[in-house]
Amino acid sequence: MAGSPRRTAGRRLQLPLLCLLLQGATAILFAVFVRYNHETDAALWHWRNHSNADNEFYFRYPSFQDVHTMIFVGFGFLMVFLQRYGFSSVGFTFLLAAFALQWSTLVQGFFHSFHGGHIHVGVERLGRLSCCSWPCWRWCYLASTSLCSLVSSGVLYRPQLEKSKHRQGSVYHSDLFAMIGTIFLWIFWPSFNSAPTTLGDGQHRTALNTYYSLTASTLSTFALSALVGRDGRLDMVHVQNAALAGGVVVGTSAEMMLTPFGALVAGFLAGTVSTLGYKFFTPILESKLKVQDTCGVHNLHGMPGVLGALLGVLVAGLATHEAYGDGLESVFPLLAKGQRSATSQAMHQLFGLFVTLIFASVGGSLGGLLLRLPFLDSPPDSQCYEDQIYWEVPGEHEDLAQGPLRAEEPETRA
Amino acid sequence: MAGSPRRTAGRRLQLPLLCLLLQGATAILFAVFVRYNHETDAALWHWRNHSNADNEFYFRYPSFQDVHTMIFVGFGFLMVFLQRYGFSSVGFTFLLAAFALQWSTLVQGFFHSFHGGHIHVGVERLGRLSCCSWPCWRWCYLASTSLCSLVSSGVLYRPQLEKSKHRQGSVYHSDLFAMIGTIFLWIFWPSFNSAPTTLGDGQHRTALNTYYSLTASTLSTFALSALVGRDGRLDMVHVQNAALAGGVVVGTSAEMMLTPFGALVAGFLAGTVSTLGYKFFTPILESKLKVQDTCGVHNLHGMPGVLGALLGVLVAGLATHEAYGDGLESVFPLLAKGQRSATSQAMHQLFGLFVTLIFASVGGSLGGLLLRLPFLDSPPDSQCYEDQIYWEVPGEHEDLAQGPLRAEEPETRA
Amino acid sequence: MAGSPRRTAGRRLQLPLLCLLLQGATAILFAVFVRYNHETDAALWHWRNHSNADNEFYFRYPSFQDVHTMIFVGFGFLMVFLQRYGFSSVGFTFLLAAFALQWSTLVQGFFHSFHGGHIHVGVERLGRLSCCSWPCWRWCYLASTSLCSLVSSGVLYRPQLEKSKHRQGSVYHSDLFAMIGTIFLWIFWPSFNSAPTTLGDGQHRTALNTYYSLTASTLSTFALSALVGRDGRLDMVHVQNAALAGGVVVGTSAEMMLTPFGALVAGFLAGTVSTLGYKFFTPILESKLKVQDTCGVHNLHGMPGVLGALLGVLVAGLATHEAYGDGLESVFPLLAKGQRSATSQAMHQLFGLFVTLIFASVGGSLGGLLLRLPFLDSPPDSQCYEDQIYWEVPGEHEDLAQGPLRAEEPETRA
Repeated sequence: MAGSPRRTAGRRLQLPLLCLLLQGATAILFAVFVRYNHETDAALWHWRNHSNADNEFYFRYPSFQDVHTMIFVGFGFLMVFLQRYGFSSVGFTFLLAAFALQWSTLVQGFFHSFHGGHIHVGVERLGRLSCCSWPCWRWCYLASTSLCSLVSSGVLYRPQLEKSKHRQGSVYHSDLFAMIGTIFLWIFWPSFNSAPTTLGDGQHRTALNTYYSLTASTLSTFALSALVGRDGRLDMVHVQNAALAGGVVVGTSAEMMLTPFGALVAGFLAGTVSTLGYKFFTPILESKLKVQDTCGVHNLHGMPGVLGALLGVLVAGLATHEAYGDGLESVFPLLAKGQRSATSQAMHQLFGLFVTLIFASVGGSLGGLLLRLPFLDSPPDSQCYEDQIYWEVPGEHEDLAQGPLRAEEPETRA
Repeated sequence: MAGSPRRTAGRRLQLPLLCLLLQGATAILFAVFVRYNHETDAALWHWRNHSNADNEFYFRYPSFQDVHTMIFVGFGFLMVFLQRYGFSSVGFTFLLAAFALQWSTLVQGFFHSFHGGHIHVGVERLGRLSCCSWPCWRWCYLASTSLCSLVSSGVLYRPQLEKSKHRQGSVYHSDLFAMIGTIFLWIFWPSFNSAPTTLGDGQHRTALNTYYSLTASTLSTFALSALVGRDGRLDMVHVQNAALAGGVVVGTSAEMMLTPFGALVAGFLAGTVSTLGYKFFTPILESKLKVQDTCGVHNLHGMPGVLGALLGVLVAGLATHEAYGDGLESVFPLLAKGQRSATSQAMHQLFGLFVTLIFASVGGSLGGLLLRLPFLDSPPDSQCYEDQIYWEVPGEHEDLAQGPLRAEEPETRA
Repeated sequence: MAGSPRRTAGRRLQLPLLCLLLQGATAILFAVFVRYNHETDAALWHWRNHSNADNEFYFRYPSFQDVHTMIFVGFGFLMVFLQRYGFSSVGFTFLLAAFALQWSTLVQGFFHSFHGGHIHVGVERLGRLSCCSWPCWRWCYLASTSLCSLVSSGVLYRPQLEKSKHRQGSVYHSDLFAMIGTIFLWIFWPSFNSAPTTLGDGQHRTALNTYYSLTASTLSTFALSALVGRDGRLDMVHVQNAALAGGVVVGTSAEMMLTPFGALVAGFLAGTVSTLGYKFFTPILESKLKVQDTCGVHNLHGMPGVLGALLGVLVAGLATHEAYGDGLESVFPLLAKGQRSATSQAMHQLFGLFVTLIFASVGGSLGGLLLRLPFLDSPPDSQCYEDQIYWEVPGEHEDLAQGPLRAEEPETRA
């Protein structure tokens, strides 16, 4: 059931080799390049004679911890709603997030904190990396699961429909587990948006705007979900995902002078677009374009993300010296120096959106092709969303669903 | 099954309209009244030439995040123990808490930070609102569920008794989910009590007193629960609720010089009173007064709350210039200025307790009557505590319990 | 089923009496000895005319809260994977942690903050105690469960093997619950290691080193788990435990100038040793030495702990004035004052390891003997890992497993 012997042998070595190879590579690069920064090194910090309470640790660490809780608990549990994919969702998010911490220390370090032949690390750097690199890793993970489902559409849901009534309890609790993910994402999205911004009012404003936007997307999600639901019933999938769209939509503009009212409007629109996307656009994607966006990445990150980029263009275009005062320098440095007009800043951001979209499309296609290469030994279509392939599932039986099913055997035998 | 067509149509529009109306109202009020405060506005903050590290964000945000975790995770999961009400418990707490953030910005803003025609918001304000407004919203939520159960007593538990053995696994896990709620409430209650107090020693002392009180209420809850339990067994309901009574009981007095010993005694009494309430008083409420206090709001918030108010009266009456030094001004400003004696302060607080109790009773009765108005379309008695009415429950079947039940069908048929 | 009447009567009073006795003792000691410290006392703080923002609360409280989340949520849910022991795991961890907060205030206070006949408490002290005292309490808890399983080997798993397929859904979700524990432990282990260190660069460096070590142990755990697993499958038990070994292994050395590379190597080794321990050493312990280390305390805390102590010896022996600068004084005070050489410091730490191991062995044996004393009324062998003995389990039936089993009755009867 778990594949031919050759395939099994291949799989046995695949993950260990990948982990060892990646860990070996980062370890060597760490030995050569990574050093503590001025805030973390015993000699450097004490040489500068600072008060210990001024160490950036005290200003960055709480937000940094929030972001980690968000990533590990939030994203980890968000996809546990796939009842036979819980181990994989939590487990592989755990593995990827752990590796991303190491990898992004290097990648971001080379670009942003490379001085005198070394990368200098501290909590501030680490927080920044998590925020910046996460979307990238997240995307890879989602691309792979999406691709898997794309290939296997038609195969995936049939057995579930047939047997579903015996696994309802499970599904109900899976949805509650997923709500743990959603709620941790919701609470800590303000920290996620504000962690990499400049200290002071910028960070303060970012957190506040994100909160207001999230409250509005939650309200619009409940409103729209009941409006389009059968008999006016709410759909847990909408609440689990679209309620978070408010955090995505202000990703670019939360540091700007968006105003609390602007945050409410942005969040409300994002929640609306995302909920309607789940209801009407995902089925079209599935039936017409044969893309099965199981995790709703398009509706949560795609549309609200584009909407947010456009909002950033708008708010940047409206930036004035009156509204920002001396704070203009930390939000739009080029604008403050007079090297760029607000309109030109807006155009630059619009151009950035297009570049991002092109990169995402090309990268997505390449990644998709890569994952289909035979030597990567991707699981057969019929085994997608099945913990069994990668995990020892309790009970030493091949199929989790078999357990409850046995209860019906008398019927079958009779 | 889900009601007549007219009723269904009404329900389909009810929640969306309510959400849209409330969101529209707050959005307009935000546009007109709400502005960033001096710590959040780019121009105002930079105009004052502060060090960025002095921004109140760094002193308030960690406590503020704790309070949010407490509300969203803690209260959200606390009532998941009702096995067919999990979606509603988590989902509606989520919706209410999100809206409360917006609404209380306005309500509290008009009273406390309204200058020059505008409400000025920042994280400090937001934290304060969560703490102050939450009990109010919480109360509304509990009142509605309590009312629902009040009406439906006798209907609610019968089916459970009959079918319960088939849903035990579910119930067992529901109780574990509820413990997630309890534990997050426990951990973050010190932040909840200390978030709105004055910076410095006041906030420090409040957190410490709350911790000690919570530890004592946990011990007394386990002690009393085993003492009154069948065969000396512990009751999960007591642990889930009465262990938190220590946080409630020092709500008023934790900022005062309660002393660690005083906190232990207060917590121990609160845990005892609350556990005994669950064991002996709730059944009387149910059988004699026909009030079904499913969530034990009386035992967790009611009795320990009144006990706590009386404790506040006592500790205020004992306040001296020796014990508080110059700190008297931040805890009891009028006492420090000599405008009020300690005894008079105590009397004022006692009077405050009576006013609160009267408000709660009148407000509760009015709220109850309001919820019974026919146009609000409250669910029929037989559908209380049933996610089905408001949520799409996985499996597309009418009753979650039907799934496992099916396993018995052979027996029935034979 | 729940024992003879005499035994039941004994059990009814056992836990309450223990709780009341302990609470009474700590309360009296609190009344006599415990006072607020300079940062917490209203008079003392205001007398010194500090800025409120300088109160240690703002530098200690976030880490302190992280440690509490780790202990209550992390350890509480870590052992929920024992499907019939979930209530006990969460509940008794809750009780023990609450009492440990009180008890360690006294024990640590007498040793470290006893001035003028009083123990002076504040958040800083409280954080320190949690970190220091927790391992001790944790150990007691684990010792008791381990002992229980030691006695009952052979009895425990037989029924599970027989009936396991009917409880798979439950087990699957139990493992997901346990992952909540694991992930919270992972996220907050950096806070756990860094909470008791000196303010400033020391705390910063400790958090950073712990993070890097944890990422490496996660990677090596996944690699090794797949390598030694059946068909290359991952084992959830390894992920739940060995992934945390990176936090344990740098417990001693994280404050030192371990370097990020050193942290990666340490974490990688710890994850490897721990995973191999679960796979190969635990079965030997069970079959040859008849020790059933259900919670894997040996593999998570034992071997990585010893490895970490040796790492501390090594890194201490390599300490130089160049590497630490003026920071040497806060990490190795005696070294900085020239009263001890680096080699001598290393030897002192090595000696400390031996003393700890001897204490642990003697203490463990004594504790084991104590727990076997008849008057302590330990549960009969056949009832280990069964919530039923101590808890009211939902459904008012004797055995949780009976529920799903009933579905088979038709078969049995026929």
